[in-house]
Amino acid sequence: MSFAKLDELCRQVAALDHAQSMLGADEATHMAPGGGADRADAMARLAGMIHRMITDPQVGDWLADAKDEGDGGKAAALREFARVRANRMALPAQFVERQTAARLRSEQLWRTLKPSGNWKAFLPTLAGVIALAREEAAMRAAASGLDPYDALIEQYDPGTRAAAIEPVFARLRQFLGEFLPVALAVQRRRREKLAARGELASPGKPVYPLEGQRALGLAGMAAAGFDFARGSLSVSHHPFCGGVPSDVRIMTRYRGGDFLSSFMAILHETGHALYEQGLPAEWAHWPCGKARGMAMHESQSLFVEKQVGRHPAFWRFALPLARKHLKLDWKHGRAVYEAQRVARGYIRVEADEVTYPLHVILRFELEADIFAGRLAAADIPQAWDARMRAYLGLGTLDRPAQGPMQDVHWPAGIFGYFPSYTLGAVMAAQQWRAIARTHRDIEKDLARGDFSRINRWRDKRIWKKASLHPADAIMQAATGSGLDPEPFIDHLRARYGQ
Amino acid sequence: MSFAKLDELCRQVAALDHAQSMLGADEATHMAPGGGADRADAMARLAGMIHRMITDPQVGDWLADAKDEGDGGKAAALREFARVRANRMALPAQFVERQTAARLRSEQLWRTLKPSGNWKAFLPTLAGVIALAREEAAMRAAASGLDPYDALIEQYDPGTRAAAIEPVFARLRQFLGEFLPVALAVQRRRREKLAARGELASPGKPVYPLEGQRALGLAGMAAAGFDFARGSLSVSHHPFCGGVPSDVRIMTRYRGGDFLSSFMAILHETGHALYEQGLPAEWAHWPCGKARGMAMHESQSLFVEKQVGRHPAFWRFALPLARKHLKLDWKHGRAVYEAQRVARGYIRVEADEVTYPLHVILRFELEADIFAGRLAAADIPQAWDARMRAYLGLGTLDRPAQGPMQDVHWPAGIFGYFPSYTLGAVMAAQQWRAIARTHRDIEKDLARGDFSRINRWRDKRIWKKASLHPADAIMQAATGSGLDPEPFIDHLRARYGQ
Repeated sequence: MSFAKLDELCRQVAALDHAQSMLGADEATHMAPGGGADRADAMARLAGMIHRMITDPQVGDWLADAKDEGDGGKAAALREFARVRANRMALPAQFVERQTAARLRSEQLWRTLKPSGNWKAFLPTLAGVIALAREEAAMRAAASGLDPYDALIEQYDPGTRAAAIEPVFARLRQFLGEFLPVALAVQRRRREKLAARGELASPGKPVYPLEGQRALGLAGMAAAGFDFARGSLSVSHHPFCGGVPSDVRIMTRYRGGDFLSSFMAILHETGHALYEQGLPAEWAHWPCGKARGMAMHESQSLFVEKQVGRHPAFWRFALPLARKHLKLDWKHGRAVYEAQRVARGYIRVEADEVTYPLHVILRFELEADIFAGRLAAADIPQAWDARMRAYLGLGTLDRPAQGPMQDVHWPAGIFGYFPSYTLGAVMAAQQWRAIARTHRDIEKDLARGDFSRINRWRDKRIWKKASLHPADAIMQAATGSGLDPEPFIDHLRARYGQ
Repeated sequence: MSFAKLDELCRQVAALDHAQSMLGADEATHMAPGGGADRADAMARLAGMIHRMITDPQVGDWLADAKDEGDGGKAAALREFARVRANRMALPAQFVERQTAARLRSEQLWRTLKPSGNWKAFLPTLAGVIALAREEAAMRAAASGLDPYDALIEQYDPGTRAAAIEPVFARLRQFLGEFLPVALAVQRRRREKLAARGELASPGKPVYPLEGQRALGLAGMAAAGFDFARGSLSVSHHPFCGGVPSDVRIMTRYRGGDFLSSFMAILHETGHALYEQGLPAEWAHWPCGKARGMAMHESQSLFVEKQVGRHPAFWRFALPLARKHLKLDWKHGRAVYEAQRVARGYIRVEADEVTYPLHVILRFELEADIFAGRLAAADIPQAWDARMRAYLGLGTLDRPAQGPMQDVHWPAGIFGYFPSYTLGAVMAAQQWRAIARTHRDIEKDLARGDFSRINRWRDKRIWKKASLHPADAIMQAATGSGLDPEPFIDHLRARYGQ
């Protein structure tokens, strides 16, 4: 009976979650500018309702009573519910409402100030959001016994601690410091070869019609296995994947002169979408039926975007599509060269496989400093600039829009999320290696645009596992080992180092 | 203190209402086909939550306690809240959830079956929705002492009874029976005159680009006073106005060969939108801050679409815009002729000012029969056909898609709403007459596309009154009389009879 009560509670919460997800997707796409205050208020109140429903004392009694009813899936469902509830119990509902509203208002302000890079005007709001995040971290730390920053990471990547991230990031930082110049040199030689063969010549600055770009994106989504009965592709100011598993909303933006930008973004979001669409429907309303944290989620998106989308074999399949929809004149060598471009740049979301971890490591280090009380909001631009110079040789003091104002995360009060991107890249490389071990001729599938074997492997070992087990257990079972940066490093060496 | 508690409750309910409104707008525009079941479940549960919050016994205590705190606006707020709550108390929350889900699923099924006009496949679902509506009507009748059909009308147009509608509709039916042939003959003579002057000649079948149609619609919205900071115009399969007052979503569809269809639909929805945007912000979260029923709402939309949008003076302003955006070659006489087209047709939403009431009277009469137990779902096509033949000389037995399957209302479980359209047309004529009495040169405003005086009048007398008073009191104060069909009849005679 107690399990049934929890099941009904989960359905009620899922209805509110559904509303929150769709309001979020709507806010990023169709909301009128004047609708922001009401939207923030509504979403804050819904967040408060969800929080109160889950933290209601009688739910604790149901959980205690239901323990005897649970075996197998039910036991896992109860375990994950208890974990989620314990996380919630750390915060009072009023704080959740206050913080949700502050985050949304801050994000809305950021969106208007970012184009002009007006750091000064944004600083007080950001400082407020950071103060709230520190309050949150302190409350979570007190409740869980974790370090404050770990208590935040736990919200996005359950089970992962800064102490486990540090050696992985240290290894990557050290490796990339040596490898980035090598990769850039290799790229230069490839470029010269292509130029010598006349394959880089382009007549003027091409403009790729948006309809053609969209058609190419849809073809990529279809090949990758996206279910169009349960989702769609539309336009936003920023690529993302939102909505609910029965209606996954992929959004992208198009750039006339650079079709790869939207195509790669669509592949990335398709990776997220496949995970959502592949989650076990029978647990859809329970916490255990949701994706296993953001590192695992990024491993799914980066698997499609990076492991697959930059693979030479994939471009045997994708190039004819690009030729058809965009009247492209590239040969295969040019396509692979363009897809694998490496560059020292300011912008994380535009970064390539090789430099991306450096952007993430920078943010991870600053976040660790913020929550250790070593870095104030006002000092972020200097700290950012120093690390950008050290890691990528680029100063950012005079360009906040391309520095600490570039990402939505901090303005939206999201701290502890950034490590997930690079942990996801690392995990995607581990997964790719495991699949390639099982299916020796997997590249033939890619060359045909046939994702069925790849997706069966991922569906069984990752998507259908949802949050029924810890992330580490899922990775162990799927790949034979826990978090390990070496397959990713080997992958970078093989793809960019020779 | 009790008033403050009610105020907080209203804010919580408003957050859920906000979610419901946006989920509804999203469903009609962006939802993936496979997302329907989850969406219906989520919206049903949110409806149940709202219902439980308002019908909670302690809310009754707060209402009783707050009586002494209320004066002026507060007293009106408490009165309207009590009315809304009494309406809610008639239905158990579980019934509301069950009915909400059934309505949404039925509407979704209707959407897939309507194109083929598959009445047989839809009948069982419609019969189920009607059975639920009868159950609802019986419960509401028992709680309110009203007749069952009146108890449904009360949900859409509070205070209006079938007995008050009948004489108005009888007068219109009798008048239109004589007047429709006259109007058609007048139209024929106008047409001949235009043809003789060579003003009807068009080179081939014109196709009006959608972007131009959209630009014209936006220009019309702007002139009519739509606030683009708090709303937007986009595309759906059906024109409608949804969202929330801070973010009003106007949707329309475009037809390449008929720009007036979308332009008039946009003017209509703009009328709704102005009302929503003009509601008093300080009461936005209270029931008294919402629009005063659907007849009043339709009076606002039809005021813009029909009284203004078909007025010859308005076309002094609109025609140059249409010429600019659509490269139109019409002269003023042609534009007025086209805007004022009258025809016996099957489809209510495409009907003109003259024939529209006949479509509504038909539905009103069938609804009255359904809730008096005189008409079963299975017999609707015959009853529909008989009345269409009598009123418009058109048989519909062989075309259900253009007969009883044409409207979303019944499939969506909405009964008692239809009278509002024609009551709204009647009220709009009363309002126009009252404005023209105050501002003798109002046509000059129209010819300049200047809505400021018109909107000031409406804002003060209608929009800002919201639901702070009964509809009849608002109309009495604004126009000097209650519901009266004669100004509408005079208007039709003046515009179409000479």
